[in-house]
Amino acid sequence: MKICKSIDGLRAVIKEGKVPLGLVPTMGSLHSGHISLIRKARSENKTVVASIFINPLQFESTDDLNLYPRSLENDLGILREECVDIAFTPPITEMYPRGFDTIVRLGLASRIFESQFRNGHFDGVSTVVCKLLSLTRADRAYFGQKDAQQGVIINKMNSDLNLGAEIIMMPTVRETDGLAISSRNVHLSPAERKAATILHKSLNLAESMGTKDAQTIKKGMQTMIETEPLARLEYISISDAFTLEEVEQLEKPALISLAVWVGKTRLIDNTTLK
Amino acid sequence: MKICKSIDGLRAVIKEGKVPLGLVPTMGSLHSGHISLIRKARSENKTVVASIFINPLQFESTDDLNLYPRSLENDLGILREECVDIAFTPPITEMYPRGFDTIVRLGLASRIFESQFRNGHFDGVSTVVCKLLSLTRADRAYFGQKDAQQGVIINKMNSDLNLGAEIIMMPTVRETDGLAISSRNVHLSPAERKAATILHKSLNLAESMGTKDAQTIKKGMQTMIETEPLARLEYISISDAFTLEEVEQLEKPALISLAVWVGKTRLIDNTTLK
Repeated sequence: MKICKSIDGLRAVIKEGKVPLGLVPTMGSLHSGHISLIRKARSENKTVVASIFINPLQFESTDDLNLYPRSLENDLGILREECVDIAFTPPITEMYPRGFDTIVRLGLASRIFESQFRNGHFDGVSTVVCKLLSLTRADRAYFGQKDAQQGVIINKMNSDLNLGAEIIMMPTVRETDGLAISSRNVHLSPAERKAATILHKSLNLAESMGTKDAQTIKKGMQTMIETEPLARLEYISISDAFTLEEVEQLEKPALISLAVWVGKTRLIDNTTLK
Repeated sequence: MKICKSIDGLRAVIKEGKVPLGLVPTMGSLHSGHISLIRKARSENKTVVASIFINPLQFESTDDLNLYPRSLENDLGILREECVDIAFTPPITEMYPRGFDTIVRLGLASRIFESQFRNGHFDGVSTVVCKLLSLTRADRAYFGQKDAQQGVIINKMNSDLNLGAEIIMMPTVRETDGLAISSRNVHLSPAERKAATILHKSLNLAESMGTKDAQTIKKGMQTMIETEPLARLEYISISDAFTLEEVEQLEKPALISLAVWVGKTRLIDNTTLK
C-alpha cells in the first residue's frame, strides 16, 4: 500500500495505476461500516484509494473537531489488511492552503432538516467531496447509508457538476443490538451505550406503525425516545428520499431520519420506507 | 470535427481521443480573440475541444441573455477551419437539467468590483467552468485576458477544487484603433464604435501617468472618459492582480480595469501594470 500525503504525490501514483478507480472517503477511526465500503470498492475496482481526512470545513465548532477520535496508525493497519492500494492522508494545509476561498453549495443542503442543526456542515461536505472526486478522478465513490442526507447531497453534487463518478451507497452496519456503528460511539459511557439503542428502536417502531401520516409517526417515535432519560431528541425528519423535502403523507419512498443527543454525544440514524 | 450536443456523447468521444486535451470555453459569436485561444490550444494539445454555450447562469437579466449575439453555423465553420477536434454545443437543459441545484462560489467573487454591478455573474461563471473542466477532464483551458477578473476567479477555483487543469490566459486581441475585440461590439452604432475607443485610451493614459497613487490614476481616467459624450463610466478598479483586492498604492502587479456603457452596450477592458 502506498501512503500519499500530498495531492501531487497522489496524482502521480494514480497516473501509474489501473482503472476503474474506487474511492472511499473517510475521516479515519475506521470501523466495520468503513470496512464494508472498502470491501465493496475492492470487489468492483482495479485501484482502491481510501482517504483519511478529518475535514475541518464540516465541523461547526472547534471543540467538536478537536473531540473527533483519531487513530491513524490503527487505520493504516486496517487499510493494509483490506488490500487498499493507496491511502491518502493529507494534512489540513494540503487540502485548504492559505487563501482557500471556494465553496460548493447545494440549495438542497439548506432546505433539509439536519442542516438546521449543523450550520454550514453540508457546504463543508460537498466542498471536500468535490475536491476528492476531482483530484482522484474516481470512477466510483462509496458512502454509508447512515449519513443518508449526506449521500443524497453528494449524489446531486456529483451529477450537477458532472464529476463523472458513480456514487454507491452501502447499508448501515449495526451492532447486534441494532445501534448504528459510528466513530462517535466511543464517547458513550456504558449506560449511554445502552440508552443509544433508542434510535434504532424508534425507527423499528416507525416501520411497524402501519400509518402513512408523518405527524403520527413522529409523535410515536418522540414518545418512545422520551422514555429514555439519557436521551434528548434533536429532530425527527420524514422526507422524500430523493429530494429531501419534508412530507406530510408517506407516498413515495420516504426517509425517516433522526438525531438524538445521548449525554454529550450526538447520534444519527435513519431508515427508508418504500 | 465531431459535434457533440450531449454530455454523454462528449465523454464517449473524449474517451477515444488522445491526451493532452485543451479546452476553449466560449459563448459563440467567435471573433479573432477566440481564434487566438483556439490556435494556442491547437499548438499545445493532441485533442482540442471548443464549447459554445451561452450560459444563462451568468446573465443578470433575461433581456441581456436574449440580446447576446448568436451565430452557431458561422461559429462551427470557424472551428472547422481552425482544426478543432470536437465542438461541444449543449442545449441549456443538458447543462442545467430540471432540479439543477449546485453553485460553485468563490469568496473572491463577492469582493471584486465587477461583481458589484453584475449580481451573481461570477457564481455563474465559476459553476459553468467547473462543469466544463470536470466533464472534459481538460489538461489545459484557455481564456482571454479581456475578462481579467474572470480569469483570476477561474484560476483560483481550478486550484481550490483540484480540478487539475492548467489555466492559460491569452492577451486581449484589439482592433487597429485599440478597441478590445468583443462579441458585444456588434451592438455599437458607427458613432458609438468611435466613442468606444475611450476605454483603451484611458488605459493608455493610466500607463503613461507615472504615478503610483490609485486615486490620481482613477481621476485622470475618469476626466478623460467624461470628454466622450456617448460614454458613461460604470467603474474603474485598481486592484492587486492576484487577489483582486482594491489597492491605494501600486506596489505589486496591479490590474486596472474598467466598465463603460457606450449607448446601451456595456464594454470592459483592462491592463496590468507590473
